[in-house]
Amino acid sequence: MRDTLAGYAALYGGPSSGPASAPIPAANEAEAPPLGYALAQLHGIFVLAENAQGLILVDMHAAHERITYERLKAARDGEGIRSQPLLVPLSLAVSEREADLAEQHADTLAGYGFELRRAGPQALSVRSVPTLLADLDPKALVLDVLSDLREHGSSRKLEEARNELLSTLACHTSVRANRRLSLPEMNALLRDMESTERSGQCNHGRPTWVQLTKAELDRLFLRGR
Amino acid sequence: MRDTLAGYAALYGGPSSGPASAPIPAANEAEAPPLGYALAQLHGIFVLAENAQGLILVDMHAAHERITYERLKAARDGEGIRSQPLLVPLSLAVSEREADLAEQHADTLAGYGFELRRAGPQALSVRSVPTLLADLDPKALVLDVLSDLREHGSSRKLEEARNELLSTLACHTSVRANRRLSLPEMNALLRDMESTERSGQCNHGRPTWVQLTKAELDRLFLRGR
Repeated sequence: MRDTLAGYAALYGGPSSGPASAPIPAANEAEAPPLGYALAQLHGIFVLAENAQGLILVDMHAAHERITYERLKAARDGEGIRSQPLLVPLSLAVSEREADLAEQHADTLAGYGFELRRAGPQALSVRSVPTLLADLDPKALVLDVLSDLREHGSSRKLEEARNELLSTLACHTSVRANRRLSLPEMNALLRDMESTERSGQCNHGRPTWVQLTKAELDRLFLRGR
Repeated sequence: MRDTLAGYAALYGGPSSGPASAPIPAANEAEAPPLGYALAQLHGIFVLAENAQGLILVDMHAAHERITYERLKAARDGEGIRSQPLLVPLSLAVSEREADLAEQHADTLAGYGFELRRAGPQALSVRSVPTLLADLDPKALVLDVLSDLREHGSSRKLEEARNELLSTLACHTSVRANRRLSLPEMNALLRDMESTERSGQCNHGRPTWVQLTKAELDRLFLRGR
C-alpha cells in the first residue's frame, strides 16, 4: 500500500495553490494512515478527517466517483467488468435508434457488464448490469450508456471513447452524495482512496481531498509559527 | 441572545483577512445557532462545527479563556466575584515579599475571590479561590496572582492593572486545552460563546473562531461558484 500511496501523494498531493499543500507523510509515520481517521461528515458533501499533519477534507462524491472509475478501468483492462443479473429484468422504453444501437453494440456493452435484449421496436429488456454499479438505478444507468453510444456511435469512435464510457458509468455514483455516512463507512472511503491509484484527483482534474496543515490552521487564527 | 450575537458577530465576525469572512446569519435563520453544532474535536485544539454557512473552527482554549475573562469581569463589575472555600486550606511557600504583598492587598484579593492568610514569614494559607476557577490548580493560580501583585505592587498601579489581573486568572483555563471534550461539552462551549460578548476575539486580539464558508471550501477544491 505504501507504494501506491507514495505515487498517489506525489502525483496528487492536493491542489497546486492555496492552503492545500499536502505534505507526503514521513516514513516513520508509516503506521498511521496518510489520510487519517474520519471525524465527521459536513453538509453531506465533505468528510472531515484528522491525520498527523492536521485536517483532511474529502469531497465524498468526487472521491467515490474516482475510485469507481479506477476499479471499472482496472476490471475492463484485466479480467473484465463483472456482470450481475437483475432479479427482475427491467423493461425500458427507448427510441428506435437507441434500440438499434443496443443491438448493434451488444458485445461492447457486454464487455462493460450490460446485457440488454431487444424487446420491441422501441423497447429493451435490461438483464444484467455491472456488479460494481448494482446498487444504482439501472434505468438511469442504461439510458446514459445509450446516450454515449448515440454520441460515439461508430465502433471506431466508441473505441476512442472507452474511458469516457467508464466516466459516464462512474458518474452515477453521484447519487450517493448527500447520503449520511457512518464513521466506519467514511474510514472505508479513506482507506479505499489510499489504495486506489490516482484517487487524489477527480475525473475533471480537481482534487478529491485537501490537507489543511496545523500551520495553516494556526494562520487562520493569526497565530504565527 | 440575538442582540448579544448581532453585536458579537458585527464586531468579531472572524479575522480581517483570509478565508474567515464570517457572514452574519440572516434573520430567517434565527432558529439555528449561529455557530452551529459541534461535529468533532481536532488535535485536542480545535472544535469543528457545522453551521448553515459552512464549517466553523473554534480555538477551544482561546474561546474558553475569553468566556472566563468576560464572566470574571462582569462579576467583578457587578455583584462581585464569588469565592469558594477550599475543603482543606492550602499551605503555600512564598517569598517574604510575596507574603507581605498578600497581607497588604488582602482586600483587593478578596474582591477577586481569593482569601489568603499569612501563615509565617514565608508562608501563606489559601482559604478560598474564585468559584469560576475552582476546578483549576489553586497553587498555580495564587502564585500567578502574587506575581502580578509583585509587578503592579502599588495600589494605584494595581487599579490600572485590574483587567490584566483578570486576564492572568482567565489564562489558567489553559490547563483545559488538550482535554477530550464530549459533543455536549463542545456544544455548550459554542452556546457560551454565542451568549458572551466579545467572545469572538481572545485577550491577545486573535479570533477565537473562524468560518470557512461553503464557497471557500469549494474554492479549496477548485470548484467555482
